[in-house]
Amino acid sequence: MNRLNGITRIPVRGAAALSRTRPAVAVLPTYVRALSTTAASPTTKPDGRERVVILGSGWAGYALAQTIKPSKASRVLISPRSHFVFTPLLASTTVGTLEFRASIEPVRRLGLDEFHQAWASDIDFASKTIRLEANTMSDTAGTKTSTLKGPVKGPEFDITYDKLVIAVGCYSQTFGIEGVAQHANFLRDVGDARDIRLKVLTAFERADLPSTTDAQRRELLSFAIVGGGPTGIEFAAELHDLVHEDLAKLYPALMPFVQVTVYDIAPKVLPMFDQALATYAMDLFHRQGIQVKTEHSLQAIRREGDILKLRIKGQADEVGAGLLVWSTGLTQNPLVAKLLEQDIPGLGRIVKDARSGGITTDGHMRVLTRQGGRGEDGPRAPLPDVYAIGDCTVQEEHRLPATAQVASQQATWLGKRINKGDLDAAGEGFKFRDWGAMAYLGSKRAIHQNGADGLKGWPAWILWRTAYLTKSMSWRNKLKIPAQWLITALFGRDISRF
Amino acid sequence: MNRLNGITRIPVRGAAALSRTRPAVAVLPTYVRALSTTAASPTTKPDGRERVVILGSGWAGYALAQTIKPSKASRVLISPRSHFVFTPLLASTTVGTLEFRASIEPVRRLGLDEFHQAWASDIDFASKTIRLEANTMSDTAGTKTSTLKGPVKGPEFDITYDKLVIAVGCYSQTFGIEGVAQHANFLRDVGDARDIRLKVLTAFERADLPSTTDAQRRELLSFAIVGGGPTGIEFAAELHDLVHEDLAKLYPALMPFVQVTVYDIAPKVLPMFDQALATYAMDLFHRQGIQVKTEHSLQAIRREGDILKLRIKGQADEVGAGLLVWSTGLTQNPLVAKLLEQDIPGLGRIVKDARSGGITTDGHMRVLTRQGGRGEDGPRAPLPDVYAIGDCTVQEEHRLPATAQVASQQATWLGKRINKGDLDAAGEGFKFRDWGAMAYLGSKRAIHQNGADGLKGWPAWILWRTAYLTKSMSWRNKLKIPAQWLITALFGRDISRF
Repeated sequence: MNRLNGITRIPVRGAAALSRTRPAVAVLPTYVRALSTTAASPTTKPDGRERVVILGSGWAGYALAQTIKPSKASRVLISPRSHFVFTPLLASTTVGTLEFRASIEPVRRLGLDEFHQAWASDIDFASKTIRLEANTMSDTAGTKTSTLKGPVKGPEFDITYDKLVIAVGCYSQTFGIEGVAQHANFLRDVGDARDIRLKVLTAFERADLPSTTDAQRRELLSFAIVGGGPTGIEFAAELHDLVHEDLAKLYPALMPFVQVTVYDIAPKVLPMFDQALATYAMDLFHRQGIQVKTEHSLQAIRREGDILKLRIKGQADEVGAGLLVWSTGLTQNPLVAKLLEQDIPGLGRIVKDARSGGITTDGHMRVLTRQGGRGEDGPRAPLPDVYAIGDCTVQEEHRLPATAQVASQQATWLGKRINKGDLDAAGEGFKFRDWGAMAYLGSKRAIHQNGADGLKGWPAWILWRTAYLTKSMSWRNKLKIPAQWLITALFGRDISRF
Repeated sequence: MNRLNGITRIPVRGAAALSRTRPAVAVLPTYVRALSTTAASPTTKPDGRERVVILGSGWAGYALAQTIKPSKASRVLISPRSHFVFTPLLASTTVGTLEFRASIEPVRRLGLDEFHQAWASDIDFASKTIRLEANTMSDTAGTKTSTLKGPVKGPEFDITYDKLVIAVGCYSQTFGIEGVAQHANFLRDVGDARDIRLKVLTAFERADLPSTTDAQRRELLSFAIVGGGPTGIEFAAELHDLVHEDLAKLYPALMPFVQVTVYDIAPKVLPMFDQALATYAMDLFHRQGIQVKTEHSLQAIRREGDILKLRIKGQADEVGAGLLVWSTGLTQNPLVAKLLEQDIPGLGRIVKDARSGGITTDGHMRVLTRQGGRGEDGPRAPLPDVYAIGDCTVQEEHRLPATAQVASQQATWLGKRINKGDLDAAGEGFKFRDWGAMAYLGSKRAIHQNGADGLKGWPAWILWRTAYLTKSMSWRNKLKIPAQWLITALFGRDISRF
């Protein structure tokens, strides 16, 4: 193994296509500048900058990479996908209010010291080494599996870190319900949004064929959403707008067959909102013809031709649907599960959060460990130079929700500490500032909750658009998004089947 | 079989998924307005408008549907794809100067009387009936096969016409060269553009991996184009711009490995341009580092992992490439081939053009037939109420090139005749007006040929952009395209791997 600039080549285990033509003797790529490092020590650059490796390009990882000043640290980002997704605008891209690219920011634009499109498959905390598996195959697929490991194994290599920040986020949780992983659509990445869009528009085209029966039309144009959180509710709202403002003009005769239904296992959707706002939302949904079925539990999905058949607990007959969007539940990333099982010499194991299965950190985002055999309350010690932020973590004493705003605030806090060089100072830890919650409800209406204050209707929709435009990451998108809103306002939503 | 409004349901032969759940007794879809027609006669609407069925949504078919006034005829369009592609801007979408959707126009936006996303698989000229096979499966794939019949057979149904216009265009011709159909990328539809884009950007990401060797980098970043017509030359130019204006900033160390090469079997590329302009183009390509290899003949392509291996006639070693774009040669659509073999009672067969294998028409776009056994020069008679325009046709006496401008001028001419109701008038036939030829060459330089006049360099590029903006079909795109050019000018090309 030769090792330079924190990168080590290792023999490839898998049958990755590229590896077959690789020469037996690994040579250093000419474009990796050779820097003076030794195999034993981490790879602080000669300019004195520490090598900060960030795992993940979501709300936590991307915001952190953006916050750290290039002059303060060598920024290395590892992510299986090549972009950050601005999740609040994903639902708008499924219906063509916005172009897909308006919801993403390519990681390469950050001008990082290094970016590798790869999975972190293992971490050795003692030697400060991360094993990576390249994931340069997945973007081309653009399917819902783009953030899940595919069958093709990429080449592997090792990199080292001076400081490591774990920000790998969570996976969708299917609760083991039969058929969800195979037949449901998720809405977490831009490829997911495209899949959903094509299914919706194709369902209309198919329903319009003279050879399609009314019974088939009713099933094809039934759109089911499982999960009554903001993501599910906003997708239902955007879909309603697309159908009633745009598709109604193109397929007027199909309108009687359309049905949008939100299922939730809980007695109430939008639990983060006051009763008054939630009631407003449900009244508006009712007027718009969107069904909300609370206390409904999906038991299985199967596919029959182009139709999904949903089995609902307590209902004798299956329900047909052309599309099911799954927007409920999170589960830990396999890397996190693996790290929590690992014995770290002298420190024991990383403290696992009992409820979420996530990584426990202190108020300074340091990953906490505990010696084995000392029970739940044994003394905890931070793992040197290892930090964790975002959905894959739980902060001890201050349990925070797994939301974008928590992740991005943690990232900003940690990034500023790195810039100041006071990462491990005894000072005050991270304080979360609740920016409130928002949900778009369709027909240019939204709700906004900020502490005890609530705002609803059209003003809340203006606030929704303004807030997300302000928060969007790049100037390119800050210009593109209002331009696309304008074009949509003038000409209607884009109905290109693309 | 029941028959209403020109639509007949027929039993489905294939194993289309949808058909399995279809009831045995076909019922008329409620949204198809029942109109008084009889099984024997075609289906002129009660308002007196004739039913004009157009096959195809390319330059010919789409422009015709757009030209015919809704008050003058009932417009029925059949196409396997749901959009028209503005082909001159496709190459710009592969590199992110424009969004993919800026190059397409959804057919549904035309507000037609009927649109069916389907293949025409057969035509019975005696009963004026067309058999259709639904193609509502293909858009979701977005691959290069989107305009080719896939393995999944859609449900079938029949429609009738009063007047029929065949505008089905051509397929790409691979000349039977081994591996082209499997491994080459075409550039004819927007899904093709997306495939190419993802391959180019992924090749850079893959080449950048520490585990990739320099030899692999050189192959991955070799981009081959076969065909030195405007499409191939413009793609090479756009790719050059992407690499040198945008990717050079993101992957500076990879630049020595990049090579763009255009292969052509002829001794000269861009044959439609004067020698002076062609020489200017070749000099500019040379300065930009784009290789042009004329009199090179590709004999086979095979794939080895992610690398394509090209066998060139007269060269001992294969040439490696990360991508091969095929932009040469046209072959007839299978429907055209089938129609030319068909015996039409009392008229013989449609006259086949010996050189192209296309449909022969007269100067009024009427499809010509000839009684069998009378040799090449036997008397020709028009097939009643059947017209053909665009790439699938050859006009007797006036052989015109298979280009977008010929197709769209024919469409406009025919559409105006339909609007005036003087389709079969003895008056003057179609006259082609040559608008000249243009090609973008990279680095904001183009060439423009108009008769004996030539224009080159930056002014020709301004003309190129102005002309295509003027020609783009919808106001939506006339607004979107300059907005996207502006954003690209401000921030560089979009490098989202999407």
